[in-house]
Amino acid sequence: MDPRIREHAALIAETCVELSAGDTLLIDAAPAADDLVVALMELAGDVGAHPFVVRDRMGKRFRRAYLRNHESVIEEPRHIRALYDELDVFVAIRSEANTATLADVDPATNAAYDRSIEDIRDVRLATRWCLTQYPSDAYAQLAGMSTAAYENFVWDAINRDWAEQAAFQSQLVERLEAADEVRLRSGDRTDLRLSVDGMIVLNDTASHNLPGGEVFTAPVVDSVEGEVCFDVPAMIDGVEVADISLRFEGGRVVEHDAPKHRELVTELLDTDDGARRLGELGIGMNRAIDRFTKNMLFDEKMGDTVHLALGMAYDDTVPEGRERNRSAKHEDLIVDMHEDSSIELDGEVVQRNGRFAFEDGFEG
Amino acid sequence: MDPRIREHAALIAETCVELSAGDTLLIDAAPAADDLVVALMELAGDVGAHPFVVRDRMGKRFRRAYLRNHESVIEEPRHIRALYDELDVFVAIRSEANTATLADVDPATNAAYDRSIEDIRDVRLATRWCLTQYPSDAYAQLAGMSTAAYENFVWDAINRDWAEQAAFQSQLVERLEAADEVRLRSGDRTDLRLSVDGMIVLNDTASHNLPGGEVFTAPVVDSVEGEVCFDVPAMIDGVEVADISLRFEGGRVVEHDAPKHRELVTELLDTDDGARRLGELGIGMNRAIDRFTKNMLFDEKMGDTVHLALGMAYDDTVPEGRERNRSAKHEDLIVDMHEDSSIELDGEVVQRNGRFAFEDGFEG
Repeated sequence: MDPRIREHAALIAETCVELSAGDTLLIDAAPAADDLVVALMELAGDVGAHPFVVRDRMGKRFRRAYLRNHESVIEEPRHIRALYDELDVFVAIRSEANTATLADVDPATNAAYDRSIEDIRDVRLATRWCLTQYPSDAYAQLAGMSTAAYENFVWDAINRDWAEQAAFQSQLVERLEAADEVRLRSGDRTDLRLSVDGMIVLNDTASHNLPGGEVFTAPVVDSVEGEVCFDVPAMIDGVEVADISLRFEGGRVVEHDAPKHRELVTELLDTDDGARRLGELGIGMNRAIDRFTKNMLFDEKMGDTVHLALGMAYDDTVPEGRERNRSAKHEDLIVDMHEDSSIELDGEVVQRNGRFAFEDGFEG
Repeated sequence: MDPRIREHAALIAETCVELSAGDTLLIDAAPAADDLVVALMELAGDVGAHPFVVRDRMGKRFRRAYLRNHESVIEEPRHIRALYDELDVFVAIRSEANTATLADVDPATNAAYDRSIEDIRDVRLATRWCLTQYPSDAYAQLAGMSTAAYENFVWDAINRDWAEQAAFQSQLVERLEAADEVRLRSGDRTDLRLSVDGMIVLNDTASHNLPGGEVFTAPVVDSVEGEVCFDVPAMIDGVEVADISLRFEGGRVVEHDAPKHRELVTELLDTDDGARRLGELGIGMNRAIDRFTKNMLFDEKMGDTVHLALGMAYDDTVPEGRERNRSAKHEDLIVDMHEDSSIELDGEVVQRNGRFAFEDGFEG
């Protein structure tokens, strides 16, 4: 077994979910990730936890077969609910054999299924949980990389010194916490202002997502003004959409475009009122992620990028008493900040062309 | 997908477990059986059942990793128990990638694990359950067959007209139900008498095991007298043991031998008092099973064989008020009845050289 697999497993067990004696543990993974599951089982044995391996969210070929043959209303599966009700720790490992497996499932049936397990999702999110990636063939292909090169990419991004990374990121957290207005500029098509006044800034290192590597918060709902062009392609409902541009007034998208897929963006914005507003401002700081791989688990943490999410704001980024944007959607969209770009906080440049003010080589 | 896989799935769902709307369903399988799982998911969708796919008993590589790293007492995993408590239907599909995976797990640790899930096993056996086989590479290798030939073997044995087979077997059931003494003769080393007076005779077709194909009951505990030589090799604790011979007096084994593994048989007999007595008399009647494959799920149903189990008698073969043999063991051992052999019931020959009295070609 590649020693990086046991390193990955140790990071999950010890840092992300703090696996302990007596913990009930569910591992959801596809067969491509078997080696990582074995490494987790060894650690579960070491600490005396109770592991159970399933192919649920990571068994999409099974789900496809089920949903394409299902016509009636789908109810919550009570045996799965009972399992989750007794769960302490949940580890999901992306490792599908074909990332397009659900492409021919009727979206309405898929949505009905998602609704049937909505309470189970909430129970799951109340456990100590972690979502991570195995460098499988299918995800390597999605990234346009050989599997060997993709293995290096994934483990370099995950098996890091997270204490050091946390310290690096905390320098930005401090500045964002103190700030009111954020201004993003990139090229001649992005100049956006928004307020983060009083919002909670989170330092994502190695907790619920592995890799971690972003600093994020929620914009004040009505504060967003200006234009932004997302020059990193997004995957919307399985379709690659390049160069989405949006214009905001009073927090709402009032104009939008995308050279090849304008209608897809229109549909997204028309989902509900919250889908026209921003729910997240995130700044990617994991520089081991040095390329886009069409996988948001990595893309949004890429060093020196900014992502903005249309739709739902996370509970833990909005203080009590403040308005939290609600929506069925949470669509992350990315701007590359490496060239001709800056992030300003209250008029002061905190990043220019991919260098932070607290780093060597910064040119204010 | 090979059409025989969907035929197999339909047999499981419709005949063995009678899958219905609203049923909670657990499928335990290794990745080699993915196609059969997909076919079962389609049927679960059709009827509106709630499927969930796990790798538990069929995830032995995971179990090995867990148990080899576990040192303390193992307790019942409460999340798995909660799942089973809400379970209507259980389908297990043998499909391991290596049938020797647990060969280097400490037997005491393995036994401790089995004890921790003993109550879960009882809950599972109270569901509508089915154990079946997928023709995977590993089981083909165990049988000394190519995988293509083994596929034919497995599906020929499973995808049968089970109503016709049930009618064929019921002819023997009627005769056994009416009989008191059974006498088995084969070659010059097997001549055994035992009573089945008042015991319950079961007609196994397509229910808990797939393939089915045996008629079985429990011998009266103290009634077994004489000698038997099991000329079909048995797998005892993973070791192939040929030509085990036993001599019974008053129902107990008083002499035993095996040319190469006498000690293994001694250990087996010394497990507990019940391990020296017989718990089952079974007669294999599935003639699509025409060879031994070192897999008891098939071997014991092979046409024109008899198996005797040392140890535990099944609950449902012993009427209330009669003594039931108890033991931690239930070790099936097989005699080939094709040549120079006969089964007599109360002095009347019911099978000679692999032909039954109710068939053409029988020579009384």
